[in-house]
Amino acid sequence: MVVKKVGVLGATGTVGQRFLTLLADHPNFKIAVLGASARSAGKLYKEATKWKQTSPMPKMVADMTVKPCEVKEFTECDIVFSGLDSDFAGEIEKNFRDANLAVVSNAKNYRRTPNVPLVVPTVNTEHLDVLKSQRRENNLDHGCIITNSNCSTAAVVVPLKALQDAFGPIDKVSVVSMQAISGAGYPGVSSLDMLDNVVPYISGEEDKIEWETRKILGGVNESVSAFELTDTVVSAQCNRVPVIDGHLMCISVKFANATPSVSDVHKALNEYVSEAQKLDCHSAPKQAIVVFDDSCPDRPQPRLDRENQQGYAVSVGRIRSDSIFDVKFVSLVHNTVLGAAGAGILNAEVAVKKGLL
Amino acid sequence: MVVKKVGVLGATGTVGQRFLTLLADHPNFKIAVLGASARSAGKLYKEATKWKQTSPMPKMVADMTVKPCEVKEFTECDIVFSGLDSDFAGEIEKNFRDANLAVVSNAKNYRRTPNVPLVVPTVNTEHLDVLKSQRRENNLDHGCIITNSNCSTAAVVVPLKALQDAFGPIDKVSVVSMQAISGAGYPGVSSLDMLDNVVPYISGEEDKIEWETRKILGGVNESVSAFELTDTVVSAQCNRVPVIDGHLMCISVKFANATPSVSDVHKALNEYVSEAQKLDCHSAPKQAIVVFDDSCPDRPQPRLDRENQQGYAVSVGRIRSDSIFDVKFVSLVHNTVLGAAGAGILNAEVAVKKGLL
Amino acid sequence: MVVKKVGVLGATGTVGQRFLTLLADHPNFKIAVLGASARSAGKLYKEATKWKQTSPMPKMVADMTVKPCEVKEFTECDIVFSGLDSDFAGEIEKNFRDANLAVVSNAKNYRRTPNVPLVVPTVNTEHLDVLKSQRRENNLDHGCIITNSNCSTAAVVVPLKALQDAFGPIDKVSVVSMQAISGAGYPGVSSLDMLDNVVPYISGEEDKIEWETRKILGGVNESVSAFELTDTVVSAQCNRVPVIDGHLMCISVKFANATPSVSDVHKALNEYVSEAQKLDCHSAPKQAIVVFDDSCPDRPQPRLDRENQQGYAVSVGRIRSDSIFDVKFVSLVHNTVLGAAGAGILNAEVAVKKGLL
Amino acid sequence: MVVKKVGVLGATGTVGQRFLTLLADHPNFKIAVLGASARSAGKLYKEATKWKQTSPMPKMVADMTVKPCEVKEFTECDIVFSGLDSDFAGEIEKNFRDANLAVVSNAKNYRRTPNVPLVVPTVNTEHLDVLKSQRRENNLDHGCIITNSNCSTAAVVVPLKALQDAFGPIDKVSVVSMQAISGAGYPGVSSLDMLDNVVPYISGEEDKIEWETRKILGGVNESVSAFELTDTVVSAQCNRVPVIDGHLMCISVKFANATPSVSDVHKALNEYVSEAQKLDCHSAPKQAIVVFDDSCPDRPQPRLDRENQQGYAVSVGRIRSDSIFDVKFVSLVHNTVLGAAGAGILNAEVAVKKGLL
Repeated sequence: MVVKKVGVLGATGTVGQRFLTLLADHPNFKIAVLGASARSAGKLYKEATKWKQTSPMPKMVADMTVKPCEVKEFTECDIVFSGLDSDFAGEIEKNFRDANLAVVSNAKNYRRTPNVPLVVPTVNTEHLDVLKSQRRENNLDHGCIITNSNCSTAAVVVPLKALQDAFGPIDKVSVVSMQAISGAGYPGVSSLDMLDNVVPYISGEEDKIEWETRKILGGVNESVSAFELTDTVVSAQCNRVPVIDGHLMCISVKFANATPSVSDVHKALNEYVSEAQKLDCHSAPKQAIVVFDDSCPDRPQPRLDRENQQGYAVSVGRIRSDSIFDVKFVSLVHNTVLGAAGAGILNAEVAVKKGLL
Repeated sequence: MVVKKVGVLGATGTVGQRFLTLLADHPNFKIAVLGASARSAGKLYKEATKWKQTSPMPKMVADMTVKPCEVKEFTECDIVFSGLDSDFAGEIEKNFRDANLAVVSNAKNYRRTPNVPLVVPTVNTEHLDVLKSQRRENNLDHGCIITNSNCSTAAVVVPLKALQDAFGPIDKVSVVSMQAISGAGYPGVSSLDMLDNVVPYISGEEDKIEWETRKILGGVNESVSAFELTDTVVSAQCNRVPVIDGHLMCISVKFANATPSVSDVHKALNEYVSEAQKLDCHSAPKQAIVVFDDSCPDRPQPRLDRENQQGYAVSVGRIRSDSIFDVKFVSLVHNTVLGAAGAGILNAEVAVKKGLL
Repeated sequence: MVVKKVGVLGATGTVGQRFLTLLADHPNFKIAVLGASARSAGKLYKEATKWKQTSPMPKMVADMTVKPCEVKEFTECDIVFSGLDSDFAGEIEKNFRDANLAVVSNAKNYRRTPNVPLVVPTVNTEHLDVLKSQRRENNLDHGCIITNSNCSTAAVVVPLKALQDAFGPIDKVSVVSMQAISGAGYPGVSSLDMLDNVVPYISGEEDKIEWETRKILGGVNESVSAFELTDTVVSAQCNRVPVIDGHLMCISVKFANATPSVSDVHKALNEYVSEAQKLDCHSAPKQAIVVFDDSCPDRPQPRLDRENQQGYAVSVGRIRSDSIFDVKFVSLVHNTVLGAAGAGILNAEVAVKKGLL
Repeated sequence: MVVKKVGVLGATGTVGQRFLTLLADHPNFKIAVLGASARSAGKLYKEATKWKQTSPMPKMVADMTVKPCEVKEFTECDIVFSGLDSDFAGEIEKNFRDANLAVVSNAKNYRRTPNVPLVVPTVNTEHLDVLKSQRRENNLDHGCIITNSNCSTAAVVVPLKALQDAFGPIDKVSVVSMQAISGAGYPGVSSLDMLDNVVPYISGEEDKIEWETRKILGGVNESVSAFELTDTVVSAQCNRVPVIDGHLMCISVKFANATPSVSDVHKALNEYVSEAQKLDCHSAPKQAIVVFDDSCPDRPQPRLDRENQQGYAVSVGRIRSDSIFDVKFVSLVHNTVLGAAGAGILNAEVAVKKGLL
């Protein structure tokens, strides 16, 4: 596979930092440009950044000079990853796309746009095909926007996709999340709100889970470049807990036409294989879903399991039948890997393999 | 009200410590005897105890000599509060009851026994009437066992009682809990399990919520001293989070025959008054349910709200309509006050007022 | 004692909130005016404030209307407590003093001013006498500024004062602090810096401990209204730890002319009585220093001991002889009570008793 | 380098788990036998172990059968790493040594034995030469015991060695530690002691730092197989803080004959190279000491810096002159890598390179 030059927008933020951690040793992507706000532009990356990752700052970026988030600085890039805040992503990402740059974005701004794919890489990479109509409509041969889901959505749609594939349409899903602080960026959540505490509210989060789940699990009508939302009713309740990385969700599922047993569900989750895996992408997990059985009744846990498959797996445990829904279980995603930067990177890998980037 | 002499079983444990904190300044109950294991018996309380409460050890108990948990040591007590572990509570509490002592217990052992009331003091104090048949069956004029609920159950049944009173039978309830570490005693949960982590499992807890809710919200057929469980279907998922005190629950409710609006629900919760309040009991909260409205979308929170009404209230917030159930909200209980020791004390206050103790 | 009307500047901040918690039930001080920034002025206190105290917001202030921090709003106040940020305290407090108002401030701005007393209320209330010369120099009969120390300084000077009284001048003091997050206000320290972490740096803090200790433990030459710093060499190293309230310090002390034994030190700390206690002030602790002996080798601890004496005591433990200094021990202060708002209140109580306010 | 077969004693404990994490991908050491208590022996490792590492359990050990800690099970091992508790290490390690097995132990039992080297691998690997006399005295050609230091000692001696090499004998050292919970094993510290808290006491820890530092920084008189303790006076105060991994220490140093400037100290630390590095050992860090300068005044921090050099470096920051000592700074060690299992592994690598194993 040929090596692609990549840029990172919002490189100094928490999502940007995770992009760099994951890209530093990437065999197919070479970091060429780092973009950040005017305040950081012109500084060395190591001076512009309050590094907050557990692993040290990659040597290769420490002494790169940060550029402003302007098209002219990124023209050499085959792919531009965006970790921009939504306050800025709307305009900048559009400018980049219009200048024929391929933008792979973690921002929420274009997720609901009809011809923009919203992709969790181990779930619905077939949605990437809509890039063709996106480019056609914009008269571009390379420029495009690909988005990945909200971090907590990823923990929901990966197991649901496996179940939907196995048992048909899902009627109802109830989700209660316990989400890590890294999802709120830096400085993000005050320590006075997080020590000896839980905050039962994350602005806008519940709506994202409820809406995005239906687009991601839905089909795509390529001829008209429109996505078809599923009929699944999703109800979400979101909480912030004192965890660094890893969103844990309690999920209850009712199927439209099936009543699979616990062991059926276990098997379906365990055997699920995504297109990203079949394409043998570099970052694709060996197991898309790591399933814990009854011998581990207290797993998955954020601290112990978020790094499963380098953060590209969703871990599921405590599968049991439910008296109201059909089945309930616990699901864990690494919110800044498969839930953010890692999703973008693996989405890009799939798009490259499919000749779309 | 005459002052009653009280004893505390399991006085050195976490629940026992909370009993003492709440009893130290109590106008109607005077601590007369402290009981603990053979290992502690004979020592001064301050030497026998690893005090883990945020408030200092009450002066009045520090220099009391701990007694073994034997009937003969407690004969002077009008009431014996039990904070015993379930490993020991079964036998000791029965011995005490059979010796005509009145036991008010936080242990789980007799909660499901037909003629033993399982009472959350701001919910179902009318169940205390079954004490008469309990005594009759055991040929006792004073001896009895009263139990209070599991800590997490309390956060569920208080708002559900208010809703059931206002809107009739509840069809289905889904509960996801985020529970404090004090609920597991000392040393209890290892810090390696609780820093930067959530544990999605608490042994036996889900079953307790599911069963106890139905007894507490059910009726009592006094003539046959049997309790009638409600038909409500309860599904619980329990998690341990890094919080000292305060269990937070996400609760979704579907009614059998009503579809109240959010403001109806708000009003019903806010206006709910329990018998303990009407009887003007010393520890009864002024508000049984403290309701947060839309101006406080991120409340209740454990650290900020667990002390509402000295820990005897349940706090409810984020009331909103639900796409699967009728309504969903967040509920918080102080797990060692209304969820444990405080429940026992207020239950005893009500029983005294009603002439049952 | 006559009841004084008091105002609170910066009433919506963390220190201001603690002032209100402590003043709400105060028998001698009645809250008359709440002042805050222009952004808050005009709103009800409960709407203007993100309440972050563990105890609920006092009812009496919830519906008071917040005023701007202007002299004309506070003219009725006998005493004005200031919890202002240092960015604003300099000008506002001077304006208030010049308008003949008595300001009791927690801000750092005037702590080093020659004729302004810097007082920890259980240490050096005799320094309040300099108010006379402060007023004389400013041609005021009531207006004045009284300051209390930095929060971490309080944990140092209380035990040092007892030791200095007993054993004479202190030659050298080494201090390593582990400080709570409430000392940084709200939002203050990011949770990403405080979960699973310690930050070994607090801007400006070490210098405050080193300088303030020498003024507080020094004498005052009233005729020239100048303070005399002690010759003690103080070396401080400050760390932020994941604790809500309570600064814990490891302190090593070398005396100039004495080598007291561990039991001498224990006795001196235990028997220390401050002027605030002798004057029988309302908020004065019964014990200025709560001393733990060898039977409690792991105390004091922030969560368990910060509320000792309602937060007005300093707790000391682990007293042992040292191979480099003479003695070393651990000291704990409630940083927002004796280390901030409580110090101001007790300072004011003493000043009233002494006829200075 | 030839591949050595290794065994691990105490393989299911926290130190044992870290040994396995570090050995799993080791090019020179191949895990051959896992030993644990009788309770675990006979089970698969994955069933016998409560895995508490942030990284997943290495595949290669999951299905190995755990053996009892008996000599006959380990006869094929070239090296036996011991992560045993001190309650068991004394007898088992002696048995292994007497059976001519080479034991590399993290336990404290033999650290103070005259002919047993106590080695921090980036500090005093020349002490390994005493193995010759240890074997001679025991009439063994291979059997021996090598120990590494207590976890917190490592954070002290690495920078002190660099300073002693550069500026001569050290007169006095004051150390205040803030230590991670992983140092106490599992379940170890109760979460009720660690949430919103610091515990200013770790049993036996201060004495270990004070004594071990003097042996490690001292010389060895090989002819009599005796170690010479340095004359350095060391005073330690130890605290447990809510951090998973990484001991942070505030260290103050006074030299006997020199008064180096801050920049001299910075340079000496930065340029320090240990024998393990010169021998090009696999696990040796590229930098033995990672030094932060004034541009990073708040570093090192446990969460951000403990993984520096894969946990084999000590990180130092905040170097400044001191008014009591000559210089003070902050030092961080990964307590389960360089402070425990990693030290054993790198010690073994050095011993192999030197022909001693």
